[in-house]
Amino acid sequence: MTDQRPSDRTSIGIVGAGLVGCLAALAFSRKGYDVCLFDLRSDPTNIDRSKRNLRSINLAVSSRGIRAIEEVDKALSDKILKHVIPMKGRMIHDKTGLKQESQLYGLNGECINSIDRSYLNDLLLQELGQSGVKVCFEHKLVKLSNVDTTPTMEFSTKNGNVKFTFDYIIGADGAHSHFRHQMQKGMRMDFSQKYIDMQYMELYIPPDPKKKFAIDANHLHIWPRHDFMLIALANEDGSFTSTFFSPWSVIESINSSNEFTQFFKENFPDAYKLIGQDALVSAFDNNPRGSLMQISAYPYNSPLGKALIIGDAAHSMVPFYGQGMNCGFEDVRILMELIEANEGAIEKAFLAYSPQRKDDLDAICKLALDNYYEMSSKVTNIWYLTKKKLDYTLGSWFKNKWQPLYTMISFRDDIPYSKAVAIEVRQSRILNNFQMGIISSLLVYGAVQGAKVYDKWRSR
Amino acid sequence: MTDQRPSDRTSIGIVGAGLVGCLAALAFSRKGYDVCLFDLRSDPTNIDRSKRNLRSINLAVSSRGIRAIEEVDKALSDKILKHVIPMKGRMIHDKTGLKQESQLYGLNGECINSIDRSYLNDLLLQELGQSGVKVCFEHKLVKLSNVDTTPTMEFSTKNGNVKFTFDYIIGADGAHSHFRHQMQKGMRMDFSQKYIDMQYMELYIPPDPKKKFAIDANHLHIWPRHDFMLIALANEDGSFTSTFFSPWSVIESINSSNEFTQFFKENFPDAYKLIGQDALVSAFDNNPRGSLMQISAYPYNSPLGKALIIGDAAHSMVPFYGQGMNCGFEDVRILMELIEANEGAIEKAFLAYSPQRKDDLDAICKLALDNYYEMSSKVTNIWYLTKKKLDYTLGSWFKNKWQPLYTMISFRDDIPYSKAVAIEVRQSRILNNFQMGIISSLLVYGAVQGAKVYDKWRSR
Repeated sequence: MTDQRPSDRTSIGIVGAGLVGCLAALAFSRKGYDVCLFDLRSDPTNIDRSKRNLRSINLAVSSRGIRAIEEVDKALSDKILKHVIPMKGRMIHDKTGLKQESQLYGLNGECINSIDRSYLNDLLLQELGQSGVKVCFEHKLVKLSNVDTTPTMEFSTKNGNVKFTFDYIIGADGAHSHFRHQMQKGMRMDFSQKYIDMQYMELYIPPDPKKKFAIDANHLHIWPRHDFMLIALANEDGSFTSTFFSPWSVIESINSSNEFTQFFKENFPDAYKLIGQDALVSAFDNNPRGSLMQISAYPYNSPLGKALIIGDAAHSMVPFYGQGMNCGFEDVRILMELIEANEGAIEKAFLAYSPQRKDDLDAICKLALDNYYEMSSKVTNIWYLTKKKLDYTLGSWFKNKWQPLYTMISFRDDIPYSKAVAIEVRQSRILNNFQMGIISSLLVYGAVQGAKVYDKWRSR
Repeated sequence: MTDQRPSDRTSIGIVGAGLVGCLAALAFSRKGYDVCLFDLRSDPTNIDRSKRNLRSINLAVSSRGIRAIEEVDKALSDKILKHVIPMKGRMIHDKTGLKQESQLYGLNGECINSIDRSYLNDLLLQELGQSGVKVCFEHKLVKLSNVDTTPTMEFSTKNGNVKFTFDYIIGADGAHSHFRHQMQKGMRMDFSQKYIDMQYMELYIPPDPKKKFAIDANHLHIWPRHDFMLIALANEDGSFTSTFFSPWSVIESINSSNEFTQFFKENFPDAYKLIGQDALVSAFDNNPRGSLMQISAYPYNSPLGKALIIGDAAHSMVPFYGQGMNCGFEDVRILMELIEANEGAIEKAFLAYSPQRKDDLDAICKLALDNYYEMSSKVTNIWYLTKKKLDYTLGSWFKNKWQPLYTMISFRDDIPYSKAVAIEVRQSRILNNFQMGIISSLLVYGAVQGAKVYDKWRSR
């Protein structure tokens, strides 16, 4: 075991070479810091992408994510955006398999953008390779020590344990973060993990031999069935990554691949054809079933501001608002802004980060959970749909004075999540009154008409 | 590393030789199971008790705890009760240091019982030694594996790692349970830890050379000062173990032992004299400051019912209702009753335990937190005191039909915690109405009297 200290510049050690860890490493590197990035996995750029695990729900990058990448590297952001598939709305598939209905996301054709997680991760890693960041794969974090004096990380590797000391350390090692677990031992950090009673299973819709995309590529496809749902996002090659979400009891009540295909035929007849019976049988027998969990922790920083957790390590949310990565990228932007505002005093920035970020992270985690209900059920509810129609109509009339929640979350990078929620609460109250007003007017109108008919009838 | 399997009887491996782990080991052993108990500490019975750490808030054993011990071993319970100091109420010390006021706990002189934690722990360990339970100290749990097939625990010891396989395993290793952490890796367990903004510091009131106990031994002494408080419980030798509770900001704003003694002189003048200036200086400089945390987890069992967490590992509460140990002991009683009800089918008992116990554990954790407010502030509030007076008066009139919450929690082992809370909600509503009734009557009476005076004055 050797104690290695990188260099004389201010050094930053980051654990987790996933999306958020990579962007953080790049951000610090661009600012001239000496950055080391560690991950327990093997270098994913060496692995055949088709052989990777089947547990990644496709990503949608939207304004907050794009802005965060842009602020690190505009050219990189442009490069990424060349490989996305814009989705301008949801495409709702009904149970007959015959009807599809488009519901636009934005007022002015704004899109969220489907992108393959591993493609994006590889791109970020390549960029890191060119920017002098030392990336150490197959380094499994074992222990943090001296967190608030000389932060030291011990890793187990093929060649035994190694220790590194940095000026500052960051944990971006995901929902099951070992960095967080180690940090908790030395401080009072509130923490909660809550499983959502839901499993997900990845499915695959192959490209169409003739028209490339078997269904419209520029929509996020949803088969909402109240208790459970199917979604599909397009990939560049014409295929779709599809995900089946259901309560555990639903999938566990299906006893064979035969029953599973039957279930699909009945509930998602068009998707059944798109995926294919054989693929469904194989998926039921072989594909892993993921679980969904919400994680919250507080504070995110160590008491003296030498260590910080970001991304899923600090706030793991369910995937239903498409904001997990976007929010994690925003973490990086906010952090770099705080470092700038504190003139490079990273301790101060780490200490300021927790209180500044808390309400926004709490808000988006809650929205993500609430949105499952919206996606799986409300999108077919008439009251919801008329309210949404009104919401969007007011949005198009009053532009910057009235914005639907989805717009504020996904297409505005300048409104903090918690503020968006506060604005939505106010708008929703107005909308409800408006809707009640319309209903009252209709009732009054109906009563007047009724009275006229009655009068006519009496005077006959 | 050797794989050791104890014997051919059904084997139970328990981690944590604290109070709850010891009682569980004893309970299983008495029923004829082959029990192994592990702890990472050295054998505490070999350590001079005065040299132990200063972090144990004194314990009060009450009905639930006593019943749980009795059901394992009546003789043991009798032995323990010979070494307790009964406390029949709270003794409230005012800020002048001159006035003390007794507030009884029960309607009929019921007492809770002060006992030294390490004394009780030693007694249980001695009992285990005589009952054939194998107790392995200095065994630090490293890993659980095959939890729901052939539950295997790996420990690190001075002589390298060792593995044991059992039929069933139980984690009773406290709030920071590593057993729970390992169990969580293989299942979906909700979990939360929340720090309470409060520190505690142990202080010591020596025996009085003349009258043995410097203050009344048969009360739990409280110096309530709203934001912070001091408590003291008697020990058999005439000393008192005292604990100072305060928000972190209060203790952290005190910069020297000099300021600390000044603070004590001002806020707890009588306690200041009892503890002594030198002891206060030494305590401020040397005694550790503990933090308080609430832990909840769910479910407590592994999916197929081979593993279970009990005691603080499953539900760590703040110490303000004096129920932490009592509740942990009750865990053991409920578990053994479920095993009996399921005719020895331990899987079934483990599976039934979680849903049966959840509401009660949630209830007592919440009560414990709420009681800080009662102890530190409400005990000096006139509205609270008259309501309590009424509550206890109704209790003495209607005996089994009306029981104050404290009585149900501390002196009734047959009312589940959640039921006690439900009854209290109903009673509290009646009490409030009653109190409002009295106030209204007084107002009416006052008005009538006033009118009479006015009439007299007018007719003069």
